[in-house]
Parts: sequence; C-alpha cells; structure tokens
Amino acid sequence: MVIVFVIVTYDINEKRVDKVRRILRRYLSWVQNSVFEGEITVGKLEKCKKELQFVIVPEEDSIYFYIIENKNNYIKNVLGIEKDLDSYVY
Amino acid sequence: MVIVFVIVTYDINEKRVDKVRRILRRYLSWVQNSVFEGEITVGKLEKCKKELQFVIVPEEDSIYFYIIENKNNYIKNVLGIEKDLDSYVY
Repeated sequence: MVIVFVIVTYDINEKRVDKVRRILRRYLSWVQNSVFEGEITVGKLEKCKKELQFVIVPEEDSIYFYIIENKNNYIKNVLGIEKDLDSYVY
Repeated sequence: MVIVFVIVTYDINEKRVDKVRRILRRYLSWVQNSVFEGEITVGKLEKCKKELQFVIVPEEDSIYFYIIENKNNYIKNVLGIEKDLDSYVY
C-alpha cells in the first residue's frame, strides 16, 4: 500500500465547486479556499480522481494534483493565516 | 546557489490580490487562478517572501509555499484545463 502526499488546487465554475469540495473533503484536508492536502494511498487517490471526473466539465474546470512520494521531501512555509477549513460547513 | 521547486497558493482579499500577483509573476509562472509554480533560487524566494510581507495583511490573507528541494520528487497530474496565465494582462 503506497502512501503519497498530495496537494490539490482547483479552479472550478461556481456551479460545481461545492460538489468538488464535497468529494475532496472525504479524502483530504481543506487548508485554503482552493487547496486541499494530505497523505493518501495511491489507490484512494485514483478513486478520488475518478469521482471528480464525473463532476467537472473539462473544458471549463481545472484541478491540479501535485504528488510528492515522500512527505519528507517538501517543506511548507506560511505567510499570514494558516487555515483549517475542515470544520467549515457550507 | 541552491535551486528549489515551489508551489505557491494564496487566498488574498481582492483589494490586494493584484499586487500579490504582480510580485509573484516576477519570480514564478502563473498556472491557475490562485497558484504560481516554478524553479527559483533560495535567495530569490526569500526576496519574494519579503516583498509579499509588505503587501499582505497577515490577519486576513494567506499564502502557502510548498517547497520541494528536487523537482524530480514530485509528479503533476491535471484534470480539465492546464492553464498558462503568464500572458494574461489584467
């Protein structure tokens, strides 16, 4: 079971953004308005992507997955607020 | 001269977001509405952060820097549009 660290950024038409967030929050942590991050197995990541593909319109929406194999291979620096939106209900 | 790969994500009050983008685009590539990325020297990254600190309001704004030491240590997957906003004039 291979676990990776992933940063997901998105720019989604507002008609669909809530649906996209609802999918992502089942797999990862919501850390900024348009960013989720967290550790995840490769299998779950593929499942997450498939769910997202059903929701987005590929000509209008954009989702990036930055996949880092080892979580020791990145450093996170923060300017301003470090957010935790996981408890935010919308 | 140490070069790193950095992903910058931000959530900035709209009064200040243009200023933030103007700074970031001098150092990195604008790849999604709230995301810049690219290779940069550690020295320039520190300069960039200092410029941003003068512009943001730390109680309201949020900027994350995900710093990956070796650009071979990450993979980028895209769903939907892969953007290049560098030529976008606003």
